[in-house]
Parts: sequence; C-alpha cells; structure tokens
Amino acid sequence: MSERQAPVDPAATAIQDLYPEEFAWCYGCGRRNSEGHRLKSYWDGDRTVARFTPQPYHLAVPGFVSGGLLASLVDCHATGTASAAADRAAGHPYGVGPLPRFVTASLRVEYLRPTPLGPELVLYGRAVSLSERKVTVEVSLHAGETQTVRGEVLCALLPASMAEHSAPGRAEPDPAGRRS
Amino acid sequence: MSERQAPVDPAATAIQDLYPEEFAWCYGCGRRNSEGHRLKSYWDGDRTVARFTPQPYHLAVPGFVSGGLLASLVDCHATGTASAAADRAAGHPYGVGPLPRFVTASLRVEYLRPTPLGPELVLYGRAVSLSERKVTVEVSLHAGETQTVRGEVLCALLPASMAEHSAPGRAEPDPAGRRS
Repeated sequence: MSERQAPVDPAATAIQDLYPEEFAWCYGCGRRNSEGHRLKSYWDGDRTVARFTPQPYHLAVPGFVSGGLLASLVDCHATGTASAAADRAAGHPYGVGPLPRFVTASLRVEYLRPTPLGPELVLYGRAVSLSERKVTVEVSLHAGETQTVRGEVLCALLPASMAEHSAPGRAEPDPAGRRS
Repeated sequence: MSERQAPVDPAATAIQDLYPEEFAWCYGCGRRNSEGHRLKSYWDGDRTVARFTPQPYHLAVPGFVSGGLLASLVDCHATGTASAAADRAAGHPYGVGPLPRFVTASLRVEYLRPTPLGPELVLYGRAVSLSERKVTVEVSLHAGETQTVRGEVLCALLPASMAEHSAPGRAEPDPAGRRS
C-alpha cells in the first residue's frame, strides 16, 4: 500500500473530505465551496455523526432554526453516510482512494418539534438498505437531549449525466461569484 | 374599509410581504433577513408561483443545483401557499391584514431529474387539503420546460410555543451577526 493511500482515522477525517476534488463543491457540504455550509460527517461506530451550529441568520421565526436549512443538513449528512457505507460495503478500508459520490433521489423530513436556534445540533445517520447504486439512510437530528427532526433519504450513485460538467478541461465553479 | 386595509393586487404583492413583521425573518423567504434567500410567492389564478435564480454557489456538483437549496425553496413556497390559501378560505380578501404564519410539519421532496444551475427556476404550489390549522401543499419546480422536482408539504399553523420569542419587548434577531 502506498503512503498516499494509507488508511485514515474515521473519527478524524470527514467523509466529505474524501470526496473527489471535482465533486467537492456542494453548497451544503463541499470543502471547496467558500459560500456553503461545509457540513462534516464522520464515522462513529456503526453510524455516522455530524455537528453543526446554525448562524443567527439561519432562522425560521425568532428563536428557531429554518426547516429548509435542517432539510439541507439532513440531505448532506445522508449522502455522506451513503457514500461511506457503500465504500465500506465494497470492502475498502476508510480513507483509501476517493469515496463514491451519491446524490439525493428523494428526501423525507419530519419536524417532530421546533429546533431551537443557538445550541450545536447533532445529526446521526445510518444506512438501512444498500445496493451498489442506491442507499437508504435514516437520519435523526438533536438539539441537546431532544430529537427534533427525523429524516429518510434515498441516495443514488451520481449519474453519468451529472458528471459531465466536472470532466477534465471544463471550467471550475466560482462559488464566490454572484449573478448580477 | 380603511385605506390601510385596501386589498392589493395578488400578482404584485408577495405572500411573504404580508407576513406579520415579527414573523418575517425566515432564512428562506423572510423580507427582513438580509442574509437569506428571500423567496417571493404570488397568487396566480388558483395556484401560487415563485421564481428564483440560484447563485453560482448554490451547486450540488458542477452544473447542477443543490438538492438542499431546492428543498428549502419547496418548503418556503409551500408554507407561503398554505398561508394565503388558509386566509382565502377564511373569507379574507388578499392583502387585508397580516396573513397567518404556517410552519412545516413534514416535507417530502422527489428529485425527478437533475436541476441545471443557471436558468431561473419556477415553482408552482397548490393547496390540496385544508383545515383551520393544517394545509397540505403540492409543489412542482421547473427549469425551463422541464419539471425537475416534486414536493409535498404538510404545513401547520405556527404553534404558540414558537411565537414566544417574537412577543413584544423581546430582542429582534440580528441576521447579519455571525457566531464567533
């Protein structure tokens, strides 16, 4: 095994940091997106975990977090979980080679109770069914001791039609650019 | 009818612009949130419509819009539709008095095909079932001629427990503030 491919500590290296360079731009979790949320998900035993503290502007009504932001966190944590779970199921040790990139086919989010704005939020993910190209992930989101959100996400391996803009020689995105 | 309460043109005044001042902070659609997406939804016959052009940083992978952002647009367009539909069902002419504020109880989003980043997106909403405190809204999202997303959202009237931080005398949010 080459030095470049040495396995890494799953609790220290985020799943999203193992996405291929050309697929690391996601608004929710891409390490290369300077304007995004940059969610980071980690293996934690047989589940995944992510922590995120919303900004003051991430509100729904005063005192509570936007449901759209919460859906976005569930979405990215789920696709990250799918990616790492599919790679593990293929027999690869964590951290060796880039992870396969999954996207969302469908998303269901239940807002069990309002999520307070202020505390760090913790998301857990678990792959509950898995094939080579599709992974179903269950996500729970917690504020302190209280679960406030439940999510179920059907993730699909990135289709070839979505990879075309990432081919070598294509211009890279400019996340900091603004439309006029 | 006083001048202040004169009905307004539903095609010219956004639903979100009729939310009460204290509930107009939403990250997705609040007119008072300087850091948010500021989605605007309008009545258009018996349905609602919203138009939104994602920024270059709202991407999933290069060339395509983030599924989390799309969920957020569906969410805010649905709660806006619920608000206006409930108000209409109560017999109020559009634009008279503040609209009731709805929040999301559950959200289902199906990504029918990838949504290209670049064109203006158009969302349509329709209230398909309605009671005094709950409205189910179906949303479709289109890029040009192509529907790319289907959403179904169960909206609930803002519960009293979520209004407590908006009571008179409470400090207003500071969306532009950042956590250290």
